[in-house]
Amino acid sequence: MSSSDIFTSEVIGTMVLVLLGGGVCAAVNLKRSKAFEAGWVAIAFGWGLAVLTGAYIAQPSGAHLNPAVTLALAIKGDTPWSDVPVYMGSELLGAMLGAVLVWVAYYGQFQATLREPDAAELKNANPGPVHGVFFTSPEVRKPLLNLLTEVVATFVLIFAILTQGLSKDVEGHVVGLGQLGALITALVVVGIGLSLGGPTGYAINPVRDLGPRIIHAVLPLPNKGGSDWSYAWIPVVGPLLGAAIAAGLYNVAWG
Amino acid sequence: MSSSDIFTSEVIGTMVLVLLGGGVCAAVNLKRSKAFEAGWVAIAFGWGLAVLTGAYIAQPSGAHLNPAVTLALAIKGDTPWSDVPVYMGSELLGAMLGAVLVWVAYYGQFQATLREPDAAELKNANPGPVHGVFFTSPEVRKPLLNLLTEVVATFVLIFAILTQGLSKDVEGHVVGLGQLGALITALVVVGIGLSLGGPTGYAINPVRDLGPRIIHAVLPLPNKGGSDWSYAWIPVVGPLLGAAIAAGLYNVAWG
Amino acid sequence: MSSSDIFTSEVIGTMVLVLLGGGVCAAVNLKRSKAFEAGWVAIAFGWGLAVLTGAYIAQPSGAHLNPAVTLALAIKGDTPWSDVPVYMGSELLGAMLGAVLVWVAYYGQFQATLREPDAAELKNANPGPVHGVFFTSPEVRKPLLNLLTEVVATFVLIFAILTQGLSKDVEGHVVGLGQLGALITALVVVGIGLSLGGPTGYAINPVRDLGPRIIHAVLPLPNKGGSDWSYAWIPVVGPLLGAAIAAGLYNVAWG
Amino acid sequence: MSSSDIFTSEVIGTMVLVLLGGGVCAAVNLKRSKAFEAGWVAIAFGWGLAVLTGAYIAQPSGAHLNPAVTLALAIKGDTPWSDVPVYMGSELLGAMLGAVLVWVAYYGQFQATLREPDAAELKNANPGPVHGVFFTSPEVRKPLLNLLTEVVATFVLIFAILTQGLSKDVEGHVVGLGQLGALITALVVVGIGLSLGGPTGYAINPVRDLGPRIIHAVLPLPNKGGSDWSYAWIPVVGPLLGAAIAAGLYNVAWG
Repeated sequence: MSSSDIFTSEVIGTMVLVLLGGGVCAAVNLKRSKAFEAGWVAIAFGWGLAVLTGAYIAQPSGAHLNPAVTLALAIKGDTPWSDVPVYMGSELLGAMLGAVLVWVAYYGQFQATLREPDAAELKNANPGPVHGVFFTSPEVRKPLLNLLTEVVATFVLIFAILTQGLSKDVEGHVVGLGQLGALITALVVVGIGLSLGGPTGYAINPVRDLGPRIIHAVLPLPNKGGSDWSYAWIPVVGPLLGAAIAAGLYNVAWG
Repeated sequence: MSSSDIFTSEVIGTMVLVLLGGGVCAAVNLKRSKAFEAGWVAIAFGWGLAVLTGAYIAQPSGAHLNPAVTLALAIKGDTPWSDVPVYMGSELLGAMLGAVLVWVAYYGQFQATLREPDAAELKNANPGPVHGVFFTSPEVRKPLLNLLTEVVATFVLIFAILTQGLSKDVEGHVVGLGQLGALITALVVVGIGLSLGGPTGYAINPVRDLGPRIIHAVLPLPNKGGSDWSYAWIPVVGPLLGAAIAAGLYNVAWG
Repeated sequence: MSSSDIFTSEVIGTMVLVLLGGGVCAAVNLKRSKAFEAGWVAIAFGWGLAVLTGAYIAQPSGAHLNPAVTLALAIKGDTPWSDVPVYMGSELLGAMLGAVLVWVAYYGQFQATLREPDAAELKNANPGPVHGVFFTSPEVRKPLLNLLTEVVATFVLIFAILTQGLSKDVEGHVVGLGQLGALITALVVVGIGLSLGGPTGYAINPVRDLGPRIIHAVLPLPNKGGSDWSYAWIPVVGPLLGAAIAAGLYNVAWG
Repeated sequence: MSSSDIFTSEVIGTMVLVLLGGGVCAAVNLKRSKAFEAGWVAIAFGWGLAVLTGAYIAQPSGAHLNPAVTLALAIKGDTPWSDVPVYMGSELLGAMLGAVLVWVAYYGQFQATLREPDAAELKNANPGPVHGVFFTSPEVRKPLLNLLTEVVATFVLIFAILTQGLSKDVEGHVVGLGQLGALITALVVVGIGLSLGGPTGYAINPVRDLGPRIIHAVLPLPNKGGSDWSYAWIPVVGPLLGAAIAAGLYNVAWG
């Protein structure tokens, strides 16, 4: 497929992924939202269904939506390395656009919520609710542990996606991602959120964290606080590392 | 298919959609209900599964159930413009019937709950629980922002539905809505509710709001309060605008 | 298929339906259960997944599991009237066995919970937690209203099931219940529970209520209270009436 | 398929099953987790989606992931008895590895949570939160009752899995597990958790309990308390007994 079609598909798909994913964080974390304090089940299903919607919309390009997926499929040999830059660039741009749309959809709630983080939040390096709409933060801030958590969580996601290539129907045909594969991948993401999201908020996708963080840095939000750039490398490096390990293990086991 | 079959299918389907959708609002908002205060996860799944049930029942007519869907499919060229009036009229009638059935099913709960909105509710322009069973209200009442939120949320719904036309099975056949498509669309609606329902209560469907609002206005409920007609144009115009934008972008991208 | 195969399949399937359905009521309502007070979302998903599991197990007989389904399929003409007695008898027996297994699985919790209903519960005609594991009770006890609620809720279930006969795959074949149909029916039941379960606890199945009620009457539970026989006709008549209306409307609309 | 492929597939699949399953217990039970106290719905969906992810990953070997499944399929005749040892050994090893990964992913949370069980917990034989991440404990400790609960719950799981062999598509082909079967099995596990998990925490899988219990015994966790070996036989024997009963009944009914 042409670079231009990849671009269109991945930009819109990742935009919708981050719009719905950031949206559920806004819905649950910001005051004057009907879903305020709806809890972690809402967050985990919200992100999983964000993946479903984005993956559905980006079917024409295979619905990577995530540089960790692109990297793994390139290592496995399904995606040509020459397509990797357009995939990753489109994903980052889409994530940035999605974060802008979250801001648009929840503008009134942001105005009602915005404030400086309080002393306890700063002490725990745990920024206030506005930050949580844009980027992830660990509950216990220890870079190596946080990196390991992201590696483990992304490993699960990527290994499950790669295994789809082994799926066969009754007549022995290999079954592609398709509608059912998108649904199952989305539910795997719900599962990862419920099970492995506790320590770091499960980026498991470099652009899902980096794109909105850039938007947070540039948006003219009053009292928005810092963008926590010292943590920013972990949700980028961890998912890529987890993806590489998953693809390597997959190639050894089933390649 | 004949206008009469479209009418039958869309009236019953939209009736069930609004019966279950309004039903979950009644279940969670009204006293003396077993689901009282079950929270936003219940609301979002309730509306999504209302879409699943209505869409399943209205398969013969393609299960629009929503003038925003009808408009988008007409712009894309899948639905003839000459069928648009019967679709939209049937949808509105079905929504009104569904609201009457919610009133029937929860009659005892309405009697236990009905009261005038209190001063705080009036100040926030946030009507009492009875109103929320029939029509949407914003948490922060700013018409342009509320309209934007409805546009964004409906854009996601419509773009996902239109993309189904790109879905292909292993042998390259285009896959129609079908059972799996209805399931995925329903889960997309759960996702939109979790992620983008916070500010306005996500009408994303003109008749889902207008039909029950008309019923609220005419039903002989004691102490029911006003029907908030000043807000009524937003959940009609916003979804239609979002649908038109989605269909236009789809035609540019993949048409 | 032979009466003996219908019997085997429907007894085991309905047994599992009521085991899991009664089980989630026990899990949420009884003390010393890990799911104690898990809320209405747990109840609605628990019953829906009980339908999924029972329907999956009873595939050989078409997975009726419910006299309302059997009646509707007989009216539509899919099930011979001569098979109706064996279906309904098997369903009732299975429901009774399922209720016994709930008692076995939660024996320790029943011992920890059993007590007489207190004065407030008696005043509201709302029996204590033990009763709720076995049979449904309305929140507002008005027989005609309660009957109407059961009619409306069952109408939705049955109309959705009957519409499956209209479902076609890409090549135009009629699609039977199958795995995906069982999943969608189960999710429809989750939706009915969330949306229409509030007033009466949604029997929507005569044997789901009558079978466990008989078991409650005969089991040697200490301090179990009465079996509320004056209400028992509503969850039997309401679902059958709703099924007949749904089947009649279906025959008029699509027959 | 070769023993080496069975080994690879079952070790990785069961590792992921226990990583996500133990993970959701850690997420909900340990302090400084974003999902702390997210409730039983989170636990039940977390374990069910753990099954989905593990089953998806272990497709090449048929995704047993559970000695109870292996035993039942051997009794039914689908799995050769000569393959049983490699299946069961791989499953145990995978479960142990999964428990280690839970410890890695939640290391910071374990450090924040670890403490001796308090007097009330010891009195109820109900160990503190750390134990619950690794192995199951009954709410009411009565070995025969606890065994019965595990037998009943596992019977449901296994009978549903065995019935998949009866599932046929529109053209009459037997439908294997496949993507949809994995999804339905996962949802059955969600249902079992919601409905039958209350009394014992539903091991329904010998290695899901024994593997992490061994890891708990050997890991150098400070203040970790005992590994409750006196209870350890119940979640091993109960599931195997339930599986044997299910397979026997299946062979009588449909064999």
